[in-house]
Amino acid sequence: MTRFFEEFTPGEEIVTHGRTVTEADVANFAGVTGDINPLHMDEEYARKTRFGRRVPHGQLIFVLALGLAERVIAPLLHESIIAFYGVDKMRFIKPVFVGDTITLKRRVESAEPRDETSGVITFDDRVMNQDGQLCLRYFPKYLLKRRP
Amino acid sequence: MTRFFEEFTPGEEIVTHGRTVTEADVANFAGVTGDINPLHMDEEYARKTRFGRRVPHGQLIFVLALGLAERVIAPLLHESIIAFYGVDKMRFIKPVFVGDTITLKRRVESAEPRDETSGVITFDDRVMNQDGQLCLRYFPKYLLKRRP
Repeated sequence: MTRFFEEFTPGEEIVTHGRTVTEADVANFAGVTGDINPLHMDEEYARKTRFGRRVPHGQLIFVLALGLAERVIAPLLHESIIAFYGVDKMRFIKPVFVGDTITLKRRVESAEPRDETSGVITFDDRVMNQDGQLCLRYFPKYLLKRRP
Repeated sequence: MTRFFEEFTPGEEIVTHGRTVTEADVANFAGVTGDINPLHMDEEYARKTRFGRRVPHGQLIFVLALGLAERVIAPLLHESIIAFYGVDKMRFIKPVFVGDTITLKRRVESAEPRDETSGVITFDDRVMNQDGQLCLRYFPKYLLKRRP
């Protein structure tokens, strides 16, 4: 089932399961990271911002999306992955609120050979809410083995 | 104590407290995100990779670093922040293992006015381990109000 560097074709797209963002996710994430910024945790403060209510951490939505991607992509990379190389151009486009349901659309953006044995696959990841609005976009890069 | 857009000077640097990455952080992060990739969670699999042992999720190190930054920077942005705008060029340079202690060095990279009332501050964030090695680098961008 493993796919090597050569087996990803630019334009190919996968869509993950959805995930509803809950109060528990926000509280657990704040507990892990220690990030208790009032925009995420203080309803009285958040009400006076342009959002009108608490907004879950943008980086929580990012890691939830990577978690959704992992379920689909990890089985394909089990023997081919060398490293999670990096992420480019992450943009928090629309807030995701508690109760919203996110889905990740991941499209193969590019495939760049690095040397005889490896190459970098870049995906274009778009996190959509239940109304089909684009909330978060980023371009993750994975270093993969070439076909032996 | 609030600092507006104009009050960040390129080159200025802050250094956060350290944080030791623990097994509990990895388990809690896997619980929140559902990301149980074997490189992070399966010692038998991880032993056969070039890392020789489990490696905490790179994106966990990223959100822990943002959590460290938040303690220093949030009080300064309490009245001036409009939005966490995005993150550029995240690179996982060296793995951070359980037991390692990370510190974040955050330097003001640039200050770009956007309009009459707001501007984007970009930081250069470098996550260092206890041996002074650069493990993760990324460039977070914040949209701030200009001085009223």
